[in-house]
Amino acid sequence: MNAAKEWKNFSLEQLQACREELEQEYAGYVKQNLKLNMSRGKPAGTQLDLCNGALETLSSYTTADGLDARNYGVLDGLPEVKKLFSDLLDIPAEKIIVGGNSSLNLMYDTMVRCLLFGTRGNTPWSKLGKVKFLCPSPGYDRHFAICEELGIEMITVPMREDGPDMELVEKLAAEDDSVKGIWCVPLYSNPQGICYSPKTVERLGAMKAAPDFRIFWDNAYGVHHIYSEEKLADIFAACEKGGHPDRVFYFFSTSKITFPGAGVAILAASPDNVAEIKKHMGIQTIGYDKLNQLRTLQFLKNADGVRAHMRKMAAELKPKFDIVLNTLQSELGGTGLAQWTSPKGGYFVAIDTLDNCAKATLELAKQAGVTMTGAGATFPYHRDPRDRNIRIAPTYPTADELQTAIRLFCVCVKLAGVRKLIAEKQ
Amino acid sequence: MNAAKEWKNFSLEQLQACREELEQEYAGYVKQNLKLNMSRGKPAGTQLDLCNGALETLSSYTTADGLDARNYGVLDGLPEVKKLFSDLLDIPAEKIIVGGNSSLNLMYDTMVRCLLFGTRGNTPWSKLGKVKFLCPSPGYDRHFAICEELGIEMITVPMREDGPDMELVEKLAAEDDSVKGIWCVPLYSNPQGICYSPKTVERLGAMKAAPDFRIFWDNAYGVHHIYSEEKLADIFAACEKGGHPDRVFYFFSTSKITFPGAGVAILAASPDNVAEIKKHMGIQTIGYDKLNQLRTLQFLKNADGVRAHMRKMAAELKPKFDIVLNTLQSELGGTGLAQWTSPKGGYFVAIDTLDNCAKATLELAKQAGVTMTGAGATFPYHRDPRDRNIRIAPTYPTADELQTAIRLFCVCVKLAGVRKLIAEKQ
Repeated sequence: MNAAKEWKNFSLEQLQACREELEQEYAGYVKQNLKLNMSRGKPAGTQLDLCNGALETLSSYTTADGLDARNYGVLDGLPEVKKLFSDLLDIPAEKIIVGGNSSLNLMYDTMVRCLLFGTRGNTPWSKLGKVKFLCPSPGYDRHFAICEELGIEMITVPMREDGPDMELVEKLAAEDDSVKGIWCVPLYSNPQGICYSPKTVERLGAMKAAPDFRIFWDNAYGVHHIYSEEKLADIFAACEKGGHPDRVFYFFSTSKITFPGAGVAILAASPDNVAEIKKHMGIQTIGYDKLNQLRTLQFLKNADGVRAHMRKMAAELKPKFDIVLNTLQSELGGTGLAQWTSPKGGYFVAIDTLDNCAKATLELAKQAGVTMTGAGATFPYHRDPRDRNIRIAPTYPTADELQTAIRLFCVCVKLAGVRKLIAEKQ
Repeated sequence: MNAAKEWKNFSLEQLQACREELEQEYAGYVKQNLKLNMSRGKPAGTQLDLCNGALETLSSYTTADGLDARNYGVLDGLPEVKKLFSDLLDIPAEKIIVGGNSSLNLMYDTMVRCLLFGTRGNTPWSKLGKVKFLCPSPGYDRHFAICEELGIEMITVPMREDGPDMELVEKLAAEDDSVKGIWCVPLYSNPQGICYSPKTVERLGAMKAAPDFRIFWDNAYGVHHIYSEEKLADIFAACEKGGHPDRVFYFFSTSKITFPGAGVAILAASPDNVAEIKKHMGIQTIGYDKLNQLRTLQFLKNADGVRAHMRKMAAELKPKFDIVLNTLQSELGGTGLAQWTSPKGGYFVAIDTLDNCAKATLELAKQAGVTMTGAGATFPYHRDPRDRNIRIAPTYPTADELQTAIRLFCVCVKLAGVRKLIAEKQ
């Protein structure tokens, strides 16, 4: 990178000239009355069309065991559906509970069970004076919302290239018994697309922590490859090796494989955890929707079927990620006004503006008709300490809309940045 | 009734002769190696066949509002689905939240929210020293299991012909601020098939109670008429009239209209309650399965469609209820060994044996291969104070199986009864 070209090294006059040009360009966008949305990780209709087979009539409501799936029975999921997820994720079937349509719901309920009942004989978290969770950030706003709702204190842990800052994680978990867990999106993390390295996974399994410390392992993008197929080390093996077989609650769903909100979610955990969870789950419900489990299975067929389907999804998504990454590079590359990640899969691109420029950037985008995830959303309590992280969700708009939106977004990043640099020089 | 024919008035010799005959009859059943199940309120396959239309391909995934139901969005249910339930149950749509596949799950989650967050500004129940619930009994075992799981003390309230003993309910609710709610199955109650009278409904709405006292109104059998269409007074109107508009949490589902576990459940409450619930629910999930909402709507069409469908269900169920009620009458009528209810709808018949004979009766049935709901299950903590109540669930077996099972059951009732009478006389 040519440091001379970085805008922070521009003279006041150069910056003022840039600003004037950018203000004009921005005004041009405002006039277009755009209405574009890059706020949520929402598939586009064209992606969903690839899944329309899952809308079709069930060819059979009889399970592999000969049960009538239309009727009551089977709390923890049909064996053939467990097998699909077992093969796909390399998790033994006996560790798997197949739930309803929402992995978020399984996470929330799991946290509530820890609060109300404790886990594996430990004190219910609601009976402790304080419960803290480690929150690698930037992270997923809905994870943080669960903690906030339930009064769990969140500790921000920075993300590195290979996962959370493990030195800090280890220190916090070892020193403070009230630290009861950590949120992880280990593959193509939300929002940066970071993949946890084998070393990170190993350290999470081995580290010293409270006996009821739990890793909430939200493998939301576990098969959502785009540019390459990144591998994730086995968190169960790591925890077993570390002597903490009950440490993981593992979540996955087909919400972004088949249909958001009409897919199938799973929770995986050690057999002892599974037994404990089922005991409580059996009071909460008679069972989840087995017909939807069969419907999803009928469409996806097996683990190879999922992989083949996800390659079609990747072909659909790659052009959109190309647009975002190419435009960021052409518009912001070398300016020093922003840094961003280049994810190999998942649903998001994360960008860091200059310090204290995220809110201003998003406000500019909003005024010009582009809705994005709110500033701070990727941090606990919506507080981005440096006000710089922005999540870009490229999947929902069409390619044309996305091209427009991301160009405009770059103008906003530059305009907010140049305004800040000018203010600093004056 | 001819009191002289009641077995308690038989001489010891008469009783011993009866016992001998019954022991022989019972032994004949045991030899048959029967395997029959009257334990749960589970529809038969023939009933479910009436619903196979709900398995068919969705004709459209676009909602009345023009939304793509395959995608994320809409926490509280599709407007057209709310309208169906609104028309069917005469509840304004703004009071309705459409949930997932399980009303039990909605009840459990509602109770958990009261524990963790309190309701309408009142102290969270988990922060109170003690929380008590009124449990009209015999009642639904899964309601009682929720209380037991969550550490809520259950107070048994006897059922009368027109609902719970309201004098006792009013007294307990007025005198004790820690009494926070009551479980009600107001139409064709589980297991007796009792319908709450308008006066009972009025008194529930008007009575003095803690500000956060809540009626968990599980209208599970609200449209499940068999012999006649009983009417249920409007609990919302009663509570509003009584000055307690937030007092009701109303539950309903299509689990026994379409498919158990693959239907659609709703929660209805005052607009203030709904706003509060949605705030928490929005942290727990992004949304319930809208495609299943549309699928259910496509099959049922509208409120009249539900009513027409339920008449077909009634035609399917009536012969089974006839078998149970006629056999009870012919085998036990006049013996004084049992009393039972004659429900006009719902899923169950409840029978009271002589005191201290329910467990013995069910043990005899079990030894002869007929599984029934466990003794005591219809009471809090599984404790039937008089050990006499038994729930008969006639829906699942075929008519032939049911005829055999209920005849055998009557033999068991008589055998347990005559053994007791003999023991008393000796």
